[in-house]
Amino acid sequence: MIETDKAEVPLIVPDPTDRRLTERVTGTDQTGAAVEISVPVERPLTLYLNAQEIVTMMTIGDYPEYLALGYLLNQNMLKYDDVVTEVEYDDDLQVVVVRTERHTNFEAKLKKRTQTSGCAQGTAFGDLLEAVESVALPKAELRTSWLYQMTHTINTMPSLYLEAGAIHGCVLCKEGTPVCYTEDVGRHNAVDKIAGWIYRHRVDPADKILYTTGRLTSEMIIKTVRMGIPILVSRSGFTAWGVELARQVGLTLVGRARGKRFIALSGEERIIHDQNLAFVEDESARHKRKGEDRDD
Amino acid sequence: MIETDKAEVPLIVPDPTDRRLTERVTGTDQTGAAVEISVPVERPLTLYLNAQEIVTMMTIGDYPEYLALGYLLNQNMLKYDDVVTEVEYDDDLQVVVVRTERHTNFEAKLKKRTQTSGCAQGTAFGDLLEAVESVALPKAELRTSWLYQMTHTINTMPSLYLEAGAIHGCVLCKEGTPVCYTEDVGRHNAVDKIAGWIYRHRVDPADKILYTTGRLTSEMIIKTVRMGIPILVSRSGFTAWGVELARQVGLTLVGRARGKRFIALSGEERIIHDQNLAFVEDESARHKRKGEDRDD
Repeated sequence: MIETDKAEVPLIVPDPTDRRLTERVTGTDQTGAAVEISVPVERPLTLYLNAQEIVTMMTIGDYPEYLALGYLLNQNMLKYDDVVTEVEYDDDLQVVVVRTERHTNFEAKLKKRTQTSGCAQGTAFGDLLEAVESVALPKAELRTSWLYQMTHTINTMPSLYLEAGAIHGCVLCKEGTPVCYTEDVGRHNAVDKIAGWIYRHRVDPADKILYTTGRLTSEMIIKTVRMGIPILVSRSGFTAWGVELARQVGLTLVGRARGKRFIALSGEERIIHDQNLAFVEDESARHKRKGEDRDD
Repeated sequence: MIETDKAEVPLIVPDPTDRRLTERVTGTDQTGAAVEISVPVERPLTLYLNAQEIVTMMTIGDYPEYLALGYLLNQNMLKYDDVVTEVEYDDDLQVVVVRTERHTNFEAKLKKRTQTSGCAQGTAFGDLLEAVESVALPKAELRTSWLYQMTHTINTMPSLYLEAGAIHGCVLCKEGTPVCYTEDVGRHNAVDKIAGWIYRHRVDPADKILYTTGRLTSEMIIKTVRMGIPILVSRSGFTAWGVELARQVGLTLVGRARGKRFIALSGEERIIHDQNLAFVEDESARHKRKGEDRDD
């Protein structure tokens, strides 16, 4: 693992002013009038692990190193105790190379592919399922006061989403405060960047809460558990398998978290109802997501 | 291609009463009170092309034959002039096998993988891009009266989405009327089922409009163009590359279509503003999607 000074862990928040991440495009609206809007970019990034080409991802393009590390960790191609000797990113070639001390060869695994709902390709989805089933998640608590502080902060702080829409966000929080907020055109990328950040900076997952704008599908549960995070919150809904997996491992699973409302379907024993609901606002029209749509 | 009598083309609409597609789960709400909700199922389906295992998809599980054919067509593993001799589905094993007259071998292709934003795996994403760039889309028109009829119908007709949330929809329409409305936990699956249905029943794509609940990313543009459909509409937003591809091939691209509002960013010449906007309602709270979230 890369050694870092804990004191230097960088907080990650969206940078809607970064001109590499959005483009202005012109078109017409329903009246035929000319309009100009911002849209997020989407570009290919090819990932190598040592000498082997692993995958080409469509990404907004920020944090390629975190994305590369997180993808490999979440695919079980990189172990948490592996020694990464170098992460090399070439902006022109749109290539990122992760080098490890250990020799790696995933030719056999790369032949076996799973397309998840959300939809990371689980080359090792079966392996991951097994790994997840033997996990013991840490004790933790989710105070509802943190939950409301967290969702309010996420919905109101500047983001690419508020600037350009059509993008997913994933936010690692401590108590009610975001410490790593990633966005990407693929929601699997946003969560993989979080995994890369945790690994790169040896961040303790046990006292963290993970928030996602996307749905609580099997893939999202597996990744959260693999990262060792005991609590997962989403403004979106659930799938049946996602709920089943969360219950198997005792992950606290909270969905449909909007304004005052939420539903918990697993690990409710971690939830402490310390917030007086009379002082929580319903979600205002302003903070309903403008891209508002079915999640995922 | 499988021969079918045109007269027998089945209309496909969601069946929210199908008990195999949703599950009831119990949990607690923000007040700590017990609640019971419906959630969509999500299960693995493994696809073989002749003797070769291609991919395992996470799907809600309806229409496995359309999904299998559409996936292979959209990955360019099956050509529109290929003769499919059999599509065999085994419900117990969760396996679907597509057999063709032509011998197929995608071992080399299966090693090369692209993960799209939305996120079909483009094993042949580069190939597809090339194929798309040489396409000539048919002349067609999009009357705004059709557009509003279509979105109103889709938002109000019974669906798994309205029953259980957390699901994407893709709807093929003729003028303002849905002829094939598919839903899936993966939006790539919903569009692949449409492709399979078109192929299976030799449906003419030239006079059709494709509607998706998901974002207008590069993947969605490529699939629409590959199917030969000249008009694509979404309630969600755009990515920059999606817009660029649509403009290259002259696809009519309409996004953020909610209530009265929409934005067209490509192929505006097909749009005929025949609807008096004074008679179109804004989207009511009732028909804002309850799963409402960032799209994808």
